[in-house]
Amino acid sequence: MHSAIILLICAGAVFLVSGDPVSEGDGVHPRSPRVKRAPGDSERDCTATPPYIPPTAKDTTDLLRRLRQGMQSSAYFAGSIQAYIIPAGDAHLSEYISERDQRRAFISGLSGSSGTAVVTNDGSGGGKAAVWTDSRYFLQAEQQLDCNWILMRQYEEGVPTIVEWLVSELGPGGRVGIDPHLVSISTWQGYADPLEADGKVLIESSGGNLIDAIWDDRPPPSTAPLITQGLNYTGKSWEDKITDIREKMSEQNADALVLTKLDEVAWLVNLRGSDVPFNPVFFAYAIVTANTAVLYLDTNKVTDDVRSHLRLGCTTGVSCVQVEAYDTLLSAVEALAADSGIRKIWISSASTTYAVFSKVPESKQILDASPVMKMKSKKNAVEQQGLKNAHIRDAVAKCEYLMWLEDAVPRGSVTEISGADYLQQLRSRQRDYMGLSFAAISASGPNGAVVHYRPSEETNRPITTSDVYLIDSGGQYKDGTTDVTRTVHFGQPTDYQRETYTLVLMGAINEFLQVFKQGTFGIRLDQAARAPLFSYGLEYGHGTGHGLGSFLNVHEDPYFGGSAGVPVGEVGTFITIEPGYYEDGQFGIRLETLAMVKEADTKYNFNGRTYLTFEPVTLVPFQEKMIKFDMMNENQLTWLNDYHRKVRETIGPELQRQGKNDVYDWLMKNTQSFETSRISSGAKAASSVFLLAIAAMCSVFST
Amino acid sequence: MHSAIILLICAGAVFLVSGDPVSEGDGVHPRSPRVKRAPGDSERDCTATPPYIPPTAKDTTDLLRRLRQGMQSSAYFAGSIQAYIIPAGDAHLSEYISERDQRRAFISGLSGSSGTAVVTNDGSGGGKAAVWTDSRYFLQAEQQLDCNWILMRQYEEGVPTIVEWLVSELGPGGRVGIDPHLVSISTWQGYADPLEADGKVLIESSGGNLIDAIWDDRPPPSTAPLITQGLNYTGKSWEDKITDIREKMSEQNADALVLTKLDEVAWLVNLRGSDVPFNPVFFAYAIVTANTAVLYLDTNKVTDDVRSHLRLGCTTGVSCVQVEAYDTLLSAVEALAADSGIRKIWISSASTTYAVFSKVPESKQILDASPVMKMKSKKNAVEQQGLKNAHIRDAVAKCEYLMWLEDAVPRGSVTEISGADYLQQLRSRQRDYMGLSFAAISASGPNGAVVHYRPSEETNRPITTSDVYLIDSGGQYKDGTTDVTRTVHFGQPTDYQRETYTLVLMGAINEFLQVFKQGTFGIRLDQAARAPLFSYGLEYGHGTGHGLGSFLNVHEDPYFGGSAGVPVGEVGTFITIEPGYYEDGQFGIRLETLAMVKEADTKYNFNGRTYLTFEPVTLVPFQEKMIKFDMMNENQLTWLNDYHRKVRETIGPELQRQGKNDVYDWLMKNTQSFETSRISSGAKAASSVFLLAIAAMCSVFST
Repeated sequence: MHSAIILLICAGAVFLVSGDPVSEGDGVHPRSPRVKRAPGDSERDCTATPPYIPPTAKDTTDLLRRLRQGMQSSAYFAGSIQAYIIPAGDAHLSEYISERDQRRAFISGLSGSSGTAVVTNDGSGGGKAAVWTDSRYFLQAEQQLDCNWILMRQYEEGVPTIVEWLVSELGPGGRVGIDPHLVSISTWQGYADPLEADGKVLIESSGGNLIDAIWDDRPPPSTAPLITQGLNYTGKSWEDKITDIREKMSEQNADALVLTKLDEVAWLVNLRGSDVPFNPVFFAYAIVTANTAVLYLDTNKVTDDVRSHLRLGCTTGVSCVQVEAYDTLLSAVEALAADSGIRKIWISSASTTYAVFSKVPESKQILDASPVMKMKSKKNAVEQQGLKNAHIRDAVAKCEYLMWLEDAVPRGSVTEISGADYLQQLRSRQRDYMGLSFAAISASGPNGAVVHYRPSEETNRPITTSDVYLIDSGGQYKDGTTDVTRTVHFGQPTDYQRETYTLVLMGAINEFLQVFKQGTFGIRLDQAARAPLFSYGLEYGHGTGHGLGSFLNVHEDPYFGGSAGVPVGEVGTFITIEPGYYEDGQFGIRLETLAMVKEADTKYNFNGRTYLTFEPVTLVPFQEKMIKFDMMNENQLTWLNDYHRKVRETIGPELQRQGKNDVYDWLMKNTQSFETSRISSGAKAASSVFLLAIAAMCSVFST
Repeated sequence: MHSAIILLICAGAVFLVSGDPVSEGDGVHPRSPRVKRAPGDSERDCTATPPYIPPTAKDTTDLLRRLRQGMQSSAYFAGSIQAYIIPAGDAHLSEYISERDQRRAFISGLSGSSGTAVVTNDGSGGGKAAVWTDSRYFLQAEQQLDCNWILMRQYEEGVPTIVEWLVSELGPGGRVGIDPHLVSISTWQGYADPLEADGKVLIESSGGNLIDAIWDDRPPPSTAPLITQGLNYTGKSWEDKITDIREKMSEQNADALVLTKLDEVAWLVNLRGSDVPFNPVFFAYAIVTANTAVLYLDTNKVTDDVRSHLRLGCTTGVSCVQVEAYDTLLSAVEALAADSGIRKIWISSASTTYAVFSKVPESKQILDASPVMKMKSKKNAVEQQGLKNAHIRDAVAKCEYLMWLEDAVPRGSVTEISGADYLQQLRSRQRDYMGLSFAAISASGPNGAVVHYRPSEETNRPITTSDVYLIDSGGQYKDGTTDVTRTVHFGQPTDYQRETYTLVLMGAINEFLQVFKQGTFGIRLDQAARAPLFSYGLEYGHGTGHGLGSFLNVHEDPYFGGSAGVPVGEVGTFITIEPGYYEDGQFGIRLETLAMVKEADTKYNFNGRTYLTFEPVTLVPFQEKMIKFDMMNENQLTWLNDYHRKVRETIGPELQRQGKNDVYDWLMKNTQSFETSRISSGAKAASSVFLLAIAAMCSVFST
């Protein structure tokens, strides 16, 4: 069986989703960043005498000594363990991880989203330590790891997997420990099964997390207050949502449902928080049964406002919610498991940790996608309008930024970082702004080819008139989450840059032009966005787009490329369309436009059915100078003109309302019908034939 | 989880492949045939007094009595059973079933490819009998079933599944019998698990098949001789194929491989047979280990020719094949299971029967797609050329037929059946013809909307100048299998017929214009063929196409719509492209053109990669009068012209070589560049603008 991975980019974190070979090969893993290195700066060299360790590396000697002591102690595991696996995740398998949960970063020194550490213990206080990470983090790892650590370059030829390494390092009967709260069911099984086949055993800690025990200055838990989301934003009360969930549970014969994803809990009870960077969520679980609904969270966060919102204190009726302490979740699951009145407990197959899973006896398990996942992705009318409104205000900030750049860049005063900072300022002036939805990817020239790029002091480049500039950014607003990418050039783009930009744009337009059936999964719709690049022998190695939340996470189901779970083909689904092209060491192009699935206006309706299509929600102009109109067909040109007309008619009035007349003028100038340009360049080939014909015919006429 | 089904049509048998909701709803299941009924003919009515049973129904009273006696006896099952399931399949889970294996048809009277019978026994010689079939066979079932049988209209509202019915019919501890040789692993589990959950049990027969025991005039086993396929046809010796298979086995750490699919065995040893209608295969199994290869078949069929081809009698070397009796397969599998030197046995997850599966202990199982399936689908250079050659000769017959129809149809002398018969005659005159690859779908007017249609005496319609005519047919040739569909009109098609024909054609062309990556699965490429219809609010409810064999089965992997197993994206893969449109009760359109996957000629090659595209292999003209050129874009028109040029240049010389000058002239007339037509109709809108411009400019020039 094939098991390639697709890299999904565009928002702050880059993450990997399983996919098929459309993104196979090198393209799957983004290239290592080509950072500008300060003179004298260099990677570590543990084979040199003495070893060279960059000053940026963390000294982990004492931490590892203390960790191995813990591995030896019986306080954490029943009996000592010979290896300890430290995953990067949190107890909710979140994409964005709070600082307090960055245990792998703490123990190894390696920051970054991807990577798993393993520490062995030879029984006499010694042992090895290794960290696995993918090519995006190779250079960073060399700068951050001291020589206690082996850098395992994941997916490179000859590099063992974690299990292969454990098999070779540990003796017979070797015992490997892990915190079951930090891994999914499948990750656990991916370790446990082959270890068992090799006569070793994976053991869950019974006495808490070993890293937490040695983390002296671990950040305290967030005490950020909860925010209530009113009906004007959610369009549906939490009471109605719970009623709908109970209906789904009943269809599945589930007597209980355990929700562990932070955004699912937040969506369900119409609350928001800020416990995790960029995602307006709070640490919580929920358990729903036919007549109870219990939230497990830090009860100190339950303000009077929240109390009133949840109508806490009511004692009868199915719409009564109870609140319990966050860390009582596992015992609550155990109680359900022991309750003879509860026949089946629904847990999400993909997003439940092994800790929760292992408390539910197999006979009681319903392992399936959470019903919240699907409901949340299909936005109701209020959420649809909210997302559209948020994107109008967001477009104001984005247009303001692009106009400002046109003026500031030639003066040489803008860098990737200062540009992104200014954009953040502009966004923050918009109504209902709540923060960024991810750290902006502000990338000039070659940095744009690093798909996961985020500017740092070391990599920061000026934005110039001789480089392509890619800006992928988004905000959180009370009425919706935004995520948009545009690529621009403030000087003279090369023909190849224009050609590839146009192919990317054609891919995006092809996607918007699709008409499809209800229930269609993303995998059926993915090829259209890639087709123009493929036909030129070019491609991009990441996903074509992702769902996004209604003032929630910037990444959620569905995805282009997905073949199960949440389909794209549902009216009210929001999904980004973001093809790209990346020329290593040169430039990167990505055009990301949010789309909403709506009914298509078709000439016929076979057997009375309706068909679906995409409506653009992001309304920010494409840059005319980057487009080679003669490569596009009539349908694509028509869409492009219609799009810019919609941009003028929607963003224009908002700019006027906000009194931004300079931006209004800029917008009008940059959205005038592209038709003119097309005729002057695009239809050249065709029209020249006709001009010849005209000449010939005129000569006939005139004789 | 979603589990819709897609109907794959086009060749003799219609079959169902699992798919996703692109074909959900009514469209999945073809409409019931609207047959012309003879006066007085009527369906059965078991509620009438007395019941009305059509004369075409089979009297099954005595058969059911004898079957229930067998269910009571301990000769077949350890202890009596209360229900017996009679599947439609054979011991190789074949698509086409030999008459001898049509047990469900024998016991119930219901012929047709789809349907499962279940007979219950109340212990006193009575009980019920029910047969489940899909909507394609409802009418036929009413005509063929007597009143002993309940017709279960599968997938209709309120109709129980087999398991639901068994649960309601049988008491606690009920015992359900089945022949484990006739069901796949998943079918077995689909019965066994829910029955077990309900306190009942599925039992495999230990004393042979109960139907065979009461089938007095059961046809004898086929004694058709085996045919050897030389290297000039196969391009690869069986020795080399076995070497390659052993490499794949080694990669999977498999010590033995059990092959159960008839076409896989035939392909592996370069032999063909005729034990099954339309498929040039023979009943056999094969087991390959690191140093043995054993065929299990009727040893009487091993002629001197076969003996010499297989070099039987050699005693040393890995290229020595042994031949054993067909019915010793199961004991051979048991021996492998008991052999401590055999650690892992590879059996195909999809195509192995429960009988074989149950002999392999779980610890020894490798359940995965057969390696032959993938190898077979990627044709080598000799096979590629053979298939192309076969399609050239096949196109001669097809063009000859279309030309003949143009003359004969207006004279009113041709029917669906006589037409198909004549086409068969024409094919049979071509070199290396070995028979039909399926029973032709020759369908006039409303019969064309019945996707599985095959003309019978009852349904036979004349081919007229006022109807659309659809002909889907194919042949077996020593160098390749063919399968082609064209739709034509011998009078004046309606505007709607032309519009829908053009949408179907545009879908086919869109598919041919795709450029994609190596390893791409069919599901990613499926939408392109459907897109033009979708954009008009129209669709078809079957698969877009299927692989086909090199003088083997007309249906094999890969499929459009497939998301695992065999990818489409491999050079040398042959797959049909066959979108369609079906207007119930009116007409059907399908355009089926075989394609070969080849490297695309792209402007760039990202990271040195090559990209793939489709080359047309079927070379039969489309009918110009059915095409509305003004609906098509430039790329589609260019493809269409290139295609017809290729038809002229490839089929033309062959027609001349065969001395068929009249057909040559017909072909030239029907493949002249369509460009002319386009300009006269298609570019009307565009050119009228330019004509105005010309007029305006000329007036300027002339002043």
